[in-house]
Amino acid sequence: MKRTLGCCYYPEHWPESQWPEDARRMAEAGLTWVRIGEFAWSRLEPAPGDYRFDWLDRAIETLGAAGLRVVLGTPTATPPRWVVDRHPDMLALDEQGRPRGFGSRRHYCFSHTGYHQECARIVTQLAQRYGGNPHVAAWQTDNEYGCHDTILSYSDAARRGFRTWLRARYGGGNAGDIGALNAAWGNVFWSMEYDDFDQIDLPNLTVTEPNPAHVLDFRRFASEQVVRFNRLQVDILRAHTTAPIAHNYMGKITDFDHFAVGDDLEIASWDSYPLGFLEDRVQADPAYKRAFAQQGDPDFQAFHHDLYRAVGRGRWWIMEQQPGPVNWAPYNPAPLPGMVRLWSWEAFAHGAEAVCYFRWRQAPFAQEQMHAGLLRPDSQDAPAIVEARQVAQELAKAPEVGTAQAPVALVFDYQADWMWAIQPQGRGLEYFELVFQTYRALRRLGLSVDILRPGASPEGYSAVFAPGLMHLPEASKAALCSGKAVTVLGPRTAARGDSFAIPVPLPPALPGLNVTVSRVETLRPDMPRALAGGGHAQLYIEELEGSAEPVLNTQAGDSIMVAKDNLAYLGAWLDAQGMDRVVQWACDKAGLQTLALPEGVRRRFDGTHTYWFNHTPERAEVAGLVLEPISVLRT
Amino acid sequence: MKRTLGCCYYPEHWPESQWPEDARRMAEAGLTWVRIGEFAWSRLEPAPGDYRFDWLDRAIETLGAAGLRVVLGTPTATPPRWVVDRHPDMLALDEQGRPRGFGSRRHYCFSHTGYHQECARIVTQLAQRYGGNPHVAAWQTDNEYGCHDTILSYSDAARRGFRTWLRARYGGGNAGDIGALNAAWGNVFWSMEYDDFDQIDLPNLTVTEPNPAHVLDFRRFASEQVVRFNRLQVDILRAHTTAPIAHNYMGKITDFDHFAVGDDLEIASWDSYPLGFLEDRVQADPAYKRAFAQQGDPDFQAFHHDLYRAVGRGRWWIMEQQPGPVNWAPYNPAPLPGMVRLWSWEAFAHGAEAVCYFRWRQAPFAQEQMHAGLLRPDSQDAPAIVEARQVAQELAKAPEVGTAQAPVALVFDYQADWMWAIQPQGRGLEYFELVFQTYRALRRLGLSVDILRPGASPEGYSAVFAPGLMHLPEASKAALCSGKAVTVLGPRTAARGDSFAIPVPLPPALPGLNVTVSRVETLRPDMPRALAGGGHAQLYIEELEGSAEPVLNTQAGDSIMVAKDNLAYLGAWLDAQGMDRVVQWACDKAGLQTLALPEGVRRRFDGTHTYWFNHTPERAEVAGLVLEPISVLRT
Amino acid sequence: MKRTLGCCYYPEHWPESQWPEDARRMAEAGLTWVRIGEFAWSRLEPAPGDYRFDWLDRAIETLGAAGLRVVLGTPTATPPRWVVDRHPDMLALDEQGRPRGFGSRRHYCFSHTGYHQECARIVTQLAQRYGGNPHVAAWQTDNEYGCHDTILSYSDAARRGFRTWLRARYGGGNAGDIGALNAAWGNVFWSMEYDDFDQIDLPNLTVTEPNPAHVLDFRRFASEQVVRFNRLQVDILRAHTTAPIAHNYMGKITDFDHFAVGDDLEIASWDSYPLGFLEDRVQADPAYKRAFAQQGDPDFQAFHHDLYRAVGRGRWWIMEQQPGPVNWAPYNPAPLPGMVRLWSWEAFAHGAEAVCYFRWRQAPFAQEQMHAGLLRPDSQDAPAIVEARQVAQELAKAPEVGTAQAPVALVFDYQADWMWAIQPQGRGLEYFELVFQTYRALRRLGLSVDILRPGASPEGYSAVFAPGLMHLPEASKAALCSGKAVTVLGPRTAARGDSFAIPVPLPPALPGLNVTVSRVETLRPDMPRALAGGGHAQLYIEELEGSAEPVLNTQAGDSIMVAKDNLAYLGAWLDAQGMDRVVQWACDKAGLQTLALPEGVRRRFDGTHTYWFNHTPERAEVAGLVLEPISVLRT
Repeated sequence: MKRTLGCCYYPEHWPESQWPEDARRMAEAGLTWVRIGEFAWSRLEPAPGDYRFDWLDRAIETLGAAGLRVVLGTPTATPPRWVVDRHPDMLALDEQGRPRGFGSRRHYCFSHTGYHQECARIVTQLAQRYGGNPHVAAWQTDNEYGCHDTILSYSDAARRGFRTWLRARYGGGNAGDIGALNAAWGNVFWSMEYDDFDQIDLPNLTVTEPNPAHVLDFRRFASEQVVRFNRLQVDILRAHTTAPIAHNYMGKITDFDHFAVGDDLEIASWDSYPLGFLEDRVQADPAYKRAFAQQGDPDFQAFHHDLYRAVGRGRWWIMEQQPGPVNWAPYNPAPLPGMVRLWSWEAFAHGAEAVCYFRWRQAPFAQEQMHAGLLRPDSQDAPAIVEARQVAQELAKAPEVGTAQAPVALVFDYQADWMWAIQPQGRGLEYFELVFQTYRALRRLGLSVDILRPGASPEGYSAVFAPGLMHLPEASKAALCSGKAVTVLGPRTAARGDSFAIPVPLPPALPGLNVTVSRVETLRPDMPRALAGGGHAQLYIEELEGSAEPVLNTQAGDSIMVAKDNLAYLGAWLDAQGMDRVVQWACDKAGLQTLALPEGVRRRFDGTHTYWFNHTPERAEVAGLVLEPISVLRT
Repeated sequence: MKRTLGCCYYPEHWPESQWPEDARRMAEAGLTWVRIGEFAWSRLEPAPGDYRFDWLDRAIETLGAAGLRVVLGTPTATPPRWVVDRHPDMLALDEQGRPRGFGSRRHYCFSHTGYHQECARIVTQLAQRYGGNPHVAAWQTDNEYGCHDTILSYSDAARRGFRTWLRARYGGGNAGDIGALNAAWGNVFWSMEYDDFDQIDLPNLTVTEPNPAHVLDFRRFASEQVVRFNRLQVDILRAHTTAPIAHNYMGKITDFDHFAVGDDLEIASWDSYPLGFLEDRVQADPAYKRAFAQQGDPDFQAFHHDLYRAVGRGRWWIMEQQPGPVNWAPYNPAPLPGMVRLWSWEAFAHGAEAVCYFRWRQAPFAQEQMHAGLLRPDSQDAPAIVEARQVAQELAKAPEVGTAQAPVALVFDYQADWMWAIQPQGRGLEYFELVFQTYRALRRLGLSVDILRPGASPEGYSAVFAPGLMHLPEASKAALCSGKAVTVLGPRTAARGDSFAIPVPLPPALPGLNVTVSRVETLRPDMPRALAGGGHAQLYIEELEGSAEPVLNTQAGDSIMVAKDNLAYLGAWLDAQGMDRVVQWACDKAGLQTLALPEGVRRRFDGTHTYWFNHTPERAEVAGLVLEPISVLRT
Repeated sequence: MKRTLGCCYYPEHWPESQWPEDARRMAEAGLTWVRIGEFAWSRLEPAPGDYRFDWLDRAIETLGAAGLRVVLGTPTATPPRWVVDRHPDMLALDEQGRPRGFGSRRHYCFSHTGYHQECARIVTQLAQRYGGNPHVAAWQTDNEYGCHDTILSYSDAARRGFRTWLRARYGGGNAGDIGALNAAWGNVFWSMEYDDFDQIDLPNLTVTEPNPAHVLDFRRFASEQVVRFNRLQVDILRAHTTAPIAHNYMGKITDFDHFAVGDDLEIASWDSYPLGFLEDRVQADPAYKRAFAQQGDPDFQAFHHDLYRAVGRGRWWIMEQQPGPVNWAPYNPAPLPGMVRLWSWEAFAHGAEAVCYFRWRQAPFAQEQMHAGLLRPDSQDAPAIVEARQVAQELAKAPEVGTAQAPVALVFDYQADWMWAIQPQGRGLEYFELVFQTYRALRRLGLSVDILRPGASPEGYSAVFAPGLMHLPEASKAALCSGKAVTVLGPRTAARGDSFAIPVPLPPALPGLNVTVSRVETLRPDMPRALAGGGHAQLYIEELEGSAEPVLNTQAGDSIMVAKDNLAYLGAWLDAQGMDRVVQWACDKAGLQTLALPEGVRRRFDGTHTYWFNHTPERAEVAGLVLEPISVLRT
């Protein structure tokens, strides 16, 4: 696999006279890819049907002539004002019922059919014109689905769509079977029974919490709307091009099923902003945030790399890589010198095909003017381009590589995230965090990890971890429980049926493991329960019944983790020390060797080499190696 | 008085074939009562006028046949969807003007006359059919008035109702006297004068705070709407049954006058969720919350027991008793073993006639699926039923008791709570908390307490405490000041007139005590003022003038509490040590013996026996007694 | 200059029989001024066109007869209900789109032309009747523009007004040039280009942040609406009176340009509530707030005194002086004894012509009933009147004074405040705070300060500080850089063009100083960077390039402040120690002597005398002087 670099560029922002020089400098820096077009609708079609592709023709030609390969984005994340004027009800409504208006981006409801038609039209135009263009070597649909909390819309269009969706789901056909829905949701509770699908509202603005089954179906519907929206574009593009199609996902967006969207794409890509994410999206105490404020979390990007490798079925990119301070986090420091290189290599170590920096030149105007680029607004080199050039040179000399299957798998299920969000049962309990803390523990012990989508085969893995799968269809459950891998399930595995009801017999009802969750407690964060032997259970704790053998007990003697043979069930949320013990237990059982890494040091084996990353500004020693401050080492 | 147990049951949630076995097990566990029906409207009347009582007939018959007595609830807390479709404007609007929609419960505005008619109809049907049923031994109106912040509605119906109410209040007749209202409210201030009642809006969404007199009248109106709504049902039921009628109040709901609602009922009942309340509604520091996270606050339930004994004029129940983890608090741990028994006995010690556990079996679907029951969803015994059986056996062997008047009375006034909420003058100053901290001090010193409604006679009490009565009609003031009891008033006693104006002469203007509040200060929580002799004044402090004798002074020499003979005025919010000194002073004066109890240990004398409760997981010694961890002792 | 006292009075709140006695007591206390009328519209015009001036005639006559001089307020801050009924769309809408209703005050949108007409009418009536009244010696327009966050309105009237304003700004004429607007705002970014001015909405409720250029123009428009609204009244008054016209600004309101409003007035006045401001508006840690909870911040009032001296071009008053506890801060303690006197003298030391106490008598009704007055509600002396009398006596014996130009100037620019608010780039970064911390440092070193409006000449000053001027027109830049004063600019100086774009060459582009901001970082508050030699840079730090000489470096060696000759650029937000070093550097350079004052001690030189203020309850010694606790000393 050839590993390449690129950047994001907006020719429409700059005088045409500047394009050739920009292109020349990109190529000179060692960049291969340049992504363009994804916000340019108002310049491509300034008025309905008034297409202006000439400038884009010339931009592509200029870039291509410099030896660059173009990723062309569809501009549907930023419908121009006239589109909104034609479809005033295309705006999403937020949970409070307020329209989310024109004036920034992503101002559309995924369920609006009129907007679907506008998108189909502009995408068709682009596909027809550039589908065969030799410089257009990849496509991107839209931009960052879900960014700015834009998946869930409470508009009339969404309400209509949801009713139609429910009709199809319950009883089939146009008529639907409202009785089936009432039964599935348990609407007898609180007299919430409906007589007709057209009585069903979206689950916002209820007096107290709505029925979780109602919300779950709405979340599924909303996710499917994204899949449908994306597929509409993919189908059009496919008819006109053989270039691969990607979407650039955003970090820690879980409101739609990325796997399902990814099934329609050739390449998954994601937008990696390590410093912004640390301040804005990583849960950590202040000391930890201080320690990594200028490096980013040592596991957060890696997690997403592994996630999108799964979403892309092996093919994945970074479409936007942070090159310096950003504009959107609570605080926006600069990366430490060397971090842009480290981040780039980290992506490649996890199998990225390409790393594209966002953006070529810092924009002097509008919303993102404080977002650094490879160049400053005055076209001088910004610090990042120096590191990008270094990576380009290193890549040229680096050995060719593939990506091997990791020894350990970790299951990630978007639906589980929705279900935990709908019913956390304790403040702050998030599925993403549960999985991520498991991932952290695996990484602390030096393991390389593959992320699996729900239902994926665990075959070939020595150990499989699947925390928090609140709904687990029987077939998936059977596959997980009957594999050869050491498998750790729980907490909350199979705790709910397809319509969010507690199953009887009680969960987890695992074949081959006699354990029943007889009761659930959630705890104040200041009330952890000590485990015998070290570590704590905290926040979420299940009472376990049954004859399975205890693996971890509280000091009070309650079983927290039980096992039989290769199958284990963990009935609690553990702290880091506790999670380390779980991982070590599984690795011992699976015959996997672990290596406890110092804080901020991580490694990744890609099948050929091991890459060592030191995210700290101090020298580190591990396994006989010396890692310089902020450094990458390949062994 | 015979003391009994019961549970809450939803036959409509379970297959009819399961009912007999459920009934058998209830009776076997020693339960007497089973409350049903209060959320079943969509099954009782699935379409307008289409009544389906057959299943309820059979359910009552099945339960009755097992020896159980039924409490039948009116289902008006959960109007079905078709009711809302008939009356789209029946929804309450929240303070921000958003409709509070269908999809959970309590989605109605108390002022909507169309909804009144729907309620009258279904209650009439139920009363006619079951008023004479031998198994229906009590009734419950609606469910938890005020839960989910549902008393204050800003709907058109409320606006119309409020205008009518104001017309009647000011000047009488349909015309009203808008000048009287303007004068009473002081509307000359800021040119807020009205020309007509129809110009008066509800006091939400003003630019800055609305006139406190405006808000107070709105709060009175809103409270009266509840009384009227409840009375509508009671009047109908009375015409058809001789069984007692109850309502199940919810803990720490103060938005309507429970005494006024209670005047129309035979029995007051309340829903006791000690662990949920501790996390969600008790003000305490984290260490305290940790210490009692699995037991609940040692005083919070007792306070409500005493309150509802007053509301029910002696007759009161627990209609819903927490049996295990609940679903709605920020964190939801399990009760420590023995706590369900302790809670039950505590209620009986405070004079409860019945304690009903909520609910019989944990529901596997809908909003409350994480709320424990006496049974698990799989019908196995949950831990609570074991303790309930023990209580039932203990009750069978326990002596008959009555309830004696306590030596100490504490006045609680819902209107005072509204007034403090309207004008706290310092962040976080709540009337409920002020009264509750007084109650805590009384309990710390081992006293049994009666709660008095405002205006109730203090006769027969040795000591009376009446903190925070912001408006105190002259007759009540005279009664309080002329009684034989040692009486402690203040702070803020009689600080406002009937329309929220400061009276002249300045407050408190007490007959027989020369004290004037010349100025009020509120303080940062980190700026308490030390009292000479121990304790602190904090948060709210009055400057006292006059010739009354000082009882407590600050170290700086300012009087904080003054007295003459049996009448004292306390001009500050005190900390616990300060409150203990106030109570001790009053008890010394009244010749009442106190006993300082260890933290978490409480006692209650019911006229015959003293009950000792140890809420801590450690053994306690007090007054020569040894109290086992989590235990009840009767002496 | 004669220095006088006064108070605010509401004859319409009290029986007419009480007026003469009130007037007598005011005069007896030594008051000169009495402000009346500003909330009395419903009494002046109870129905459209039904004017009732007779009572006001008598009130003015009564006050005048007692020797008092009247400040007459226009009542436009409190339009009566009937005005709102005539113009239901005159209400402002908040950022969430909710109307800000009748029932308190300031319930109008500055852009509503119908309301303009109502105001013009009532002001004309008042001007005609009282413009020549010998007792009416000054006028006040409206009351506290901007209080309760009332400058920014998102109403239809505002939207219409904004579009008209934009048309005029871009391209001139009625047509406007939408292309010019698109280019200026950079609307090509995210396809935000407009085809017509009528497509432009107000910048609220966008999906993510709106274009900063869009918001900046809206903020300018909103500020100009206030200027226009005020000028409408001033023009009418001028036609009928020669008395000076004032407006009473409120502390720390920055949503409109006070200088621009002030240009139409003779006198600037402000409303000084030291204790309320400390709790509600001063950023400080709890220990500091505790230390000054009953005195107010030692610099906050002084800053406003100096600010309004600039706004009033030398003529300024305190129109409302806190006399005791107020009703609106989170906590409302009483001032320490002596503070009312201290505040009064502090104002005079900073050049105030008059200090008026708010209010004469505490109101027993409506919203401000907990706001102390000079009298209690029962007409007894409150503590403040005793101190006011003392000040009156002291004034009578005090020497006549003027106000000298201070040696140091500090530039304050309302537009800069909007720009920082629009793009803070780090949480909590506020321009006001940046300037105020500079002011604090100047005061800590004993300096008297003049505040300059942007563009004002620095002539005559030894040192000029101009932090944070994000947009700095070229002429102003040239004036600042070419003056003789030691001048300290930055951070963020000239960082944006007129339409919020980053200029190229990069900022600050100062004539005579070779420095370029190559990158900006914002930092977590817990990540300050130590300076070599003491102090820290924090929160906001620029990377500086260029050949200018370093003045301050971080311990890591990065330049934080650079200079050439008299011109310095500071590229960071510093802590107090760092700011002290900056000020000391400038003073050394300028040959100004500094004196480090103890905490809570401040001085002010008025050209004739030095006034020393001890805000602490302990004795202080400084410069050989002994300052008694809570005291004023003139030397």
